[in-house]
Amino acid sequence: MSRFFTSRLDQLTPYVPGEQPQDRKYLKLNTNESPFPPSPGVTRAAEEEAGKNQLYSDPESAALRRALGERYGLEPERIMVSNGSDEVLNYAFVAFGDETAPLVFPDITYGFYPVFAELNRIPYRTIPLDGNFRIRPEDYYDSGSNVVLANPNAPTGIALEPDQVEDILKRNREHVVILDEAYVDFGGVSARPLLERYENLLIVQTFSKSRCMAGARLGFAMGSEELIRDLKTIQYSTNPYNVNRMTAAAGIAALREQAYYDDCCRKIVENRAWTKERLEELGFSVLPSRTNFLFARWDRMGGEALYLALKRRGILIRHFGLERIKDYNRITIGTREQMETFIAGVRECLEEKA
Amino acid sequence: MSRFFTSRLDQLTPYVPGEQPQDRKYLKLNTNESPFPPSPGVTRAAEEEAGKNQLYSDPESAALRRALGERYGLEPERIMVSNGSDEVLNYAFVAFGDETAPLVFPDITYGFYPVFAELNRIPYRTIPLDGNFRIRPEDYYDSGSNVVLANPNAPTGIALEPDQVEDILKRNREHVVILDEAYVDFGGVSARPLLERYENLLIVQTFSKSRCMAGARLGFAMGSEELIRDLKTIQYSTNPYNVNRMTAAAGIAALREQAYYDDCCRKIVENRAWTKERLEELGFSVLPSRTNFLFARWDRMGGEALYLALKRRGILIRHFGLERIKDYNRITIGTREQMETFIAGVRECLEEKA
Repeated sequence: MSRFFTSRLDQLTPYVPGEQPQDRKYLKLNTNESPFPPSPGVTRAAEEEAGKNQLYSDPESAALRRALGERYGLEPERIMVSNGSDEVLNYAFVAFGDETAPLVFPDITYGFYPVFAELNRIPYRTIPLDGNFRIRPEDYYDSGSNVVLANPNAPTGIALEPDQVEDILKRNREHVVILDEAYVDFGGVSARPLLERYENLLIVQTFSKSRCMAGARLGFAMGSEELIRDLKTIQYSTNPYNVNRMTAAAGIAALREQAYYDDCCRKIVENRAWTKERLEELGFSVLPSRTNFLFARWDRMGGEALYLALKRRGILIRHFGLERIKDYNRITIGTREQMETFIAGVRECLEEKA
Repeated sequence: MSRFFTSRLDQLTPYVPGEQPQDRKYLKLNTNESPFPPSPGVTRAAEEEAGKNQLYSDPESAALRRALGERYGLEPERIMVSNGSDEVLNYAFVAFGDETAPLVFPDITYGFYPVFAELNRIPYRTIPLDGNFRIRPEDYYDSGSNVVLANPNAPTGIALEPDQVEDILKRNREHVVILDEAYVDFGGVSARPLLERYENLLIVQTFSKSRCMAGARLGFAMGSEELIRDLKTIQYSTNPYNVNRMTAAAGIAALREQAYYDDCCRKIVENRAWTKERLEELGFSVLPSRTNFLFARWDRMGGEALYLALKRRGILIRHFGLERIKDYNRITIGTREQMETFIAGVRECLEEKA
């Protein structure tokens, strides 16, 4: 920190993204990227736009919001788009959080939530997941806070059912419930139908996971027209042109090629089941995932030791140092071939250990 | 505003970007875009990257920062890149501003500064430009505040000289001086050499103007390693992957094709001189610009009336409603042909009026 840095934020600890080491080629199963490239139309659309970059993108992202609205049966006024869903989440924290409207979220969840809260100086508290790493809906009833839930949750992969989400919405009508559905397309159930009945529901989704566009940066929010207008107030006070031309065009094209992405998701779900079986054969405890990753623990080796042993073999998975989950690792699901390489690597670690 | 919107920000008035009406084709001279497309290598680089968008961009943007460092003779640790320079500016406001370090900037300048200050609840005061719309350096001596100056200034186009900038730096050693050099490549002089002597200097630049990439979103900051680390703390607490893959690749390619952009800037400077002469022949008062726009007043017609009359003719320029500058319009400099169309449009307005 320089001597000019504000004392307001001297407790701020930034988020730590998954490592991207450049020292050798790795099998990267550590940042929940898709192993599949974007669909051909997406690549073409981005290419076509690249030569027009001298002109600003449409700050309203009107065409992209229309396309999303058609896909999800919502008026474009109920959708906002942003430079990745992290940015949408940050806008939502800024728009709705303060001393009188603090935040509540699980102790084990996406590690960015406490960072956004600290950055914006919004008081927050965390509620422990239960012994099976599940969110207990009743813990969030009448919370007196804005509620932030990743559904499915990360890094556990476990999802709440729609009626559980609805109970939380019903019991927090004076606060916003922010549902981070980044991983919903891998077998979760979106709360989208509840938008018609709950004006306190804000759903955040991303093109980074099921739509294979992590590197293009595109996230979006769905909610009441009023909540969306609030988010746009923050957007227009921060970065009105936050979605670049190429990414906007790519997003529209992706929505036209849904079958490709459905197929990608289907493969991930298959490979997830295959990987889970293999890991369980090897003696792992694996949480039931509805995401593109598995969260797994191995009694024969500590979480960090396994992570390091695999890294030495050129395989990257993600280990979190938090006390409650330090025995676990998060493994992104890739192609079948990648998962075979991963399982072979795990077997080697086992043999080395024996 | 929804009933959930924070009362912290109920005074917030978002920035209003230049209009992008879709009702007909316009000659757009209202958002200071380049009339020239990105160089061929830039388009190719973005295209090549489009098919790899399933993978996150490098959160360190290491290759792009290296390329910028080579171009400007700075270590990469003294550079940070972001999703447009507005985002860099917002990060800087967050990192360095608070109740004990308020902000000061001119009354007439880039309209986003007061918005960033309101958003982040940082106290600020403004200092009037002098009667010739110039910044008086001595007004900023010993300011007790972080100083924010666009140099050249917008929408006036007028630049401070390097020794004037240095005097402001010398007389504010306990505060950060943020120099927004968005338009510096059109005849201004960058304060970059002063970085070696002033640890309180932060320079912000953009690829949107002289590098013809407004739609790709790329801005950057240059400063001491410590100031840059502070900005990264905010970046990693907001949106670590904020620069997408395609834009990062485009940025690197643009730095390799500097001659193309130098030529674009040269043409803009020529067309600016040509347009200024024509406007003066028609009786306009035109401020001396070192940017890609002119700021001009016409005694025969109010600023808003001229703006509207041109808009009816399919020509968009920018009018600001602020009391001190409401007689003026800001005209982006395009190709010679575009400026001929503009001047013809102005003549028509004159004849209509007569």
